[in-house]
Amino acid sequence: MDDRALLASVRAVIGDDDIGDDCAVLHHGDRCLVLTTDMLHETTDFPEGMTDWQRGWMAAAVSLSDIASMGAEPLALLLAAGLDDPARLEAITRGASDCCRRHGGRLVGGDIDHHRELTLVSTALGEVAPEFLVRRTGTRAGDLVCVTGTPGRAMAGLEGWQEHRLALLEPCPRVAAGRAIGRAGATAMMDLSDGLALSLHDLAVVNRCGFRLRREVLPRPEAVPEPIATGYALYGGGDYELLFCIPADRLPIAGVDATVIGEVTADEGVILIDGVPVERRGYSHTWVV
Amino acid sequence: MDDRALLASVRAVIGDDDIGDDCAVLHHGDRCLVLTTDMLHETTDFPEGMTDWQRGWMAAAVSLSDIASMGAEPLALLLAAGLDDPARLEAITRGASDCCRRHGGRLVGGDIDHHRELTLVSTALGEVAPEFLVRRTGTRAGDLVCVTGTPGRAMAGLEGWQEHRLALLEPCPRVAAGRAIGRAGATAMMDLSDGLALSLHDLAVVNRCGFRLRREVLPRPEAVPEPIATGYALYGGGDYELLFCIPADRLPIAGVDATVIGEVTADEGVILIDGVPVERRGYSHTWVV
Repeated sequence: MDDRALLASVRAVIGDDDIGDDCAVLHHGDRCLVLTTDMLHETTDFPEGMTDWQRGWMAAAVSLSDIASMGAEPLALLLAAGLDDPARLEAITRGASDCCRRHGGRLVGGDIDHHRELTLVSTALGEVAPEFLVRRTGTRAGDLVCVTGTPGRAMAGLEGWQEHRLALLEPCPRVAAGRAIGRAGATAMMDLSDGLALSLHDLAVVNRCGFRLRREVLPRPEAVPEPIATGYALYGGGDYELLFCIPADRLPIAGVDATVIGEVTADEGVILIDGVPVERRGYSHTWVV
Repeated sequence: MDDRALLASVRAVIGDDDIGDDCAVLHHGDRCLVLTTDMLHETTDFPEGMTDWQRGWMAAAVSLSDIASMGAEPLALLLAAGLDDPARLEAITRGASDCCRRHGGRLVGGDIDHHRELTLVSTALGEVAPEFLVRRTGTRAGDLVCVTGTPGRAMAGLEGWQEHRLALLEPCPRVAAGRAIGRAGATAMMDLSDGLALSLHDLAVVNRCGFRLRREVLPRPEAVPEPIATGYALYGGGDYELLFCIPADRLPIAGVDATVIGEVTADEGVILIDGVPVERRGYSHTWVV
């Protein structure tokens, strides 16, 4: 059972409305509040060789990226830390706090506990005006599909390409870009943490659409030869770039480094790059049961 | 190094203002948002013999109790679950959701991950009008000190008193009481999760005050003989009752089951019950370093 199957099993409890997006959405006065939580473990989620400062940074970045993917502005971050050694807390806290200072929000609290394996759980709260909120659903055939930055860099870093190592270890949540994309009128958005291919498949399911991509325009990690680079861009996880759909007349978006990689089609579930199917695989926990 | 010493070590990073209360406080429009996160592990935080439904319930209850202790109303809960067995998720989710249905807020999302030891991290968001927000600081000598319900019941349950077992396994966060206490004009509040004695010492430090209690009026677990019952009431943890200070003319509070157990004094750090010092001990993680 993978994450997606497991999530489906609790929909009956939580309700469909609340489980589809990168964040839960709460209407609060004339604003929307968005809320997300992410659990990371030392052995399975943090690349080897990271510093504790980088672990704290990454814990914050993954949650801020979820806020960004809703077009929202981060307000606050909480960090719960299960520590094998209490001496690690200060560097971890500093990393999370520095990521907030750089990209938005503020580290306002958390919890600490003892744990055999370092476990960090970050929770971020953000807000956005309802008219600029972007969800995963809402795109239509004919919209363009775009990504910020270069997908696949984290995978390239993991595979030893030194020029991409920082993209892996110190991911930048695209908070400012997310807000600009929301204000520009994007019709659907999510972040790329699980990889481009898997994210496209997720969007295709909830929007009952397909995608047609062109390999020629797909940004790929520099210095990596083909076809490895395209493989990283499609199937590598750990990038906190944004994937979004938007009508053509809303582009370009001032100040946003984004690339049109293709278009939304009416062929439900069919995702093609230069006419070849994109597989439904990428980063996903697999449960042994 | 215990939790309190460890927290002190990160104050330089997070800032003093944000770390003193059961929740972080954010001013948002004309309301205050309050935010809290709690990490629980199977071996150290959940009593033996609990069902998974009860574990989910407890994870929600500890965070809703933090919301209650600010005088706030819960809006939403997130649950991050590190699971040793994915089959446990549904009962855990149902327990957390049921606790919200009963006491406030709504389970709106979460995260799942694999973990050798079950780890649950609940995060709650609440809101309160600024004039009814209650923090840990703000009490003055002459205020009365009160508790809701009966402290020590969870400890009695843990020690085998069957009539108190449900108080241990299915704690009730005092959400409705917390809101009424805030509206009544309480000057300081926190929950009793770490035990009455430790909580009084915490309040004494941040308010630079003391407390004078009377044993005769202290609620103690029924059916437990003295002096064990008083020991449980003072030093037992795991009760999610509320401890608060309030001027005498604001009592009683309609609909709140609370007992005046003594008064606030100007004797900084001096906590007495019938003239005898109350020790600074209770539930606290201890780190072996």
